[in-house]
Amino acid sequence: MEILSFSNGILKILDQRKLPFSNEYIICQDYREVVRAIKEMVVRGAPAISIAGAYAVAQAKGKKQDFERAAEEIMAARPTAVDLSNAVGFMLEGINAEKDEVELAKEWEDSIYEKCFNLCNHGAELIKENARVLTHCNTGPLAVGKHGTALGVLITAHKKGKNPFVWVDETRPRFQGALTSWELLQEHIPHKVIPDSSAGFLMQKEEVDLVIVGADRICKNGDFANKIGTYSLAVLAKHHGIPFYVAAPTSSLDLSLDTGKNIPIEKRDEREVLEPMGVRAYHRDSSAMNYAFDTTPADLVTGYITEEGVRKKP
Amino acid sequence: MEILSFSNGILKILDQRKLPFSNEYIICQDYREVVRAIKEMVVRGAPAISIAGAYAVAQAKGKKQDFERAAEEIMAARPTAVDLSNAVGFMLEGINAEKDEVELAKEWEDSIYEKCFNLCNHGAELIKENARVLTHCNTGPLAVGKHGTALGVLITAHKKGKNPFVWVDETRPRFQGALTSWELLQEHIPHKVIPDSSAGFLMQKEEVDLVIVGADRICKNGDFANKIGTYSLAVLAKHHGIPFYVAAPTSSLDLSLDTGKNIPIEKRDEREVLEPMGVRAYHRDSSAMNYAFDTTPADLVTGYITEEGVRKKP
Repeated sequence: MEILSFSNGILKILDQRKLPFSNEYIICQDYREVVRAIKEMVVRGAPAISIAGAYAVAQAKGKKQDFERAAEEIMAARPTAVDLSNAVGFMLEGINAEKDEVELAKEWEDSIYEKCFNLCNHGAELIKENARVLTHCNTGPLAVGKHGTALGVLITAHKKGKNPFVWVDETRPRFQGALTSWELLQEHIPHKVIPDSSAGFLMQKEEVDLVIVGADRICKNGDFANKIGTYSLAVLAKHHGIPFYVAAPTSSLDLSLDTGKNIPIEKRDEREVLEPMGVRAYHRDSSAMNYAFDTTPADLVTGYITEEGVRKKP
Repeated sequence: MEILSFSNGILKILDQRKLPFSNEYIICQDYREVVRAIKEMVVRGAPAISIAGAYAVAQAKGKKQDFERAAEEIMAARPTAVDLSNAVGFMLEGINAEKDEVELAKEWEDSIYEKCFNLCNHGAELIKENARVLTHCNTGPLAVGKHGTALGVLITAHKKGKNPFVWVDETRPRFQGALTSWELLQEHIPHKVIPDSSAGFLMQKEEVDLVIVGADRICKNGDFANKIGTYSLAVLAKHHGIPFYVAAPTSSLDLSLDTGKNIPIEKRDEREVLEPMGVRAYHRDSSAMNYAFDTTPADLVTGYITEEGVRKKP
């Protein structure tokens, strides 16, 4: 199934909010429609939104809009993942060097797919036979466009006959576990969904051999931001002596930040917490705090899986 | 609002599944109806279900049913909390000593309320002025019938002018955070609901001064069972050097178990995970693991708050 595709100035995006129940596409003819699709999580996953963002810049340039202003709006659509601003920076640089904007965006897209393909192969080497692996959020093909990152590693390991079993964090508040479970079903990989809060208990019961997650922004020292709940998993893995790996292409690197202290952490609408699946669970006067991401310090990370291999430091 | 009341052989139970949107009662004329109400979480919270269980035994005895068989069924309704079997044991002993069954159940009820009242007062001494306290599940008056345990401590601290702020774990999969938030709203106590997985990030950001939870069964050595997610919080609190307290009346003690290893952990229907608020989030072929409780070892506990005071060991 195609997740992102671009032709004749139109970006077609698979609407991830409708999965796993229906395969619907959103048609974006203008960069502003792409910005909205990113904000509303029609498309999500740091690498996938970077590709959407690259095509959005190409759209603005192609329609002779103020593409530098458009670039600002695109970068601001979701602040935490650095891939998006890296993509926009790549586009602006290329456009200023008078390269064709559509070819540039295609080049970015292809480079992301190639990186993630290599990343998955490197990562699969780490997965032992019959390993029981816990993962958080959705980091499969949907989060990239192809291949995936952390979940892509597990899919690749499965294809290589490693027979992994996956514990799928439901990933409140948006339930990206539903996307992960759906991707695992397609690949016939055995798995079970769990409430995020039960990961610790499964580790205590020695039912988790390894934790693998993606990243939205990795700093120079290895601190990284990822979906809220990642930091708790890292602390729990450390407490239980369970290896904790981060899988992300180098497009998620932010060498301008020395440590994780200054990563911008997106806060989203409290209704995502108070209205699970669109149904109000709370009194009308209740309020919530909805950090979409958290930051994990490098000292809790066993290794970083990128397209270049597996390293102790990014 | 009355949570549990008994008269003329009828137990009236506030239906907690309908909160915070409507105040409806379930009328139980037979112990089997009470068993169903406990299983379906019409009434929940270890002390509250023990009171319901005591009256259920009284109903069976009053209707000249085989009350010893009824006692078995009542105890099996929910296996993890020991308060229920302690209540049933108390009832059987009294009935065998030819005491009046309704007076016995009333005696159990009153003793629970008195214990929790004292517990709340002892616990409130621990709460520093303007403390930011994180709690999990619902342990307020609803979970007891009156006063509450862990949340009762915070309500009492508020009444004593300590001005606590409460981080309310939403407590997947059943969202008992909605009950906690509702009880805090009644008392005008400032609070915010959070996804369970964000507790660690708030601790990292130094926004949590203390964690307080209830218990469903405390063993001789201090290991205890409580709502799934409690163990993760205990590990996270330890990692951040944050005090972690357990508040429970001595009716939650199980001196027959030396350690937490053999506490029976209830698994509930996977649909609680896969269908948040009754709405399917997952593909029909997805499956889930739904442990309702977990076990926390004593070495992660700063102190136990009971009606007898605050102790390092239970």
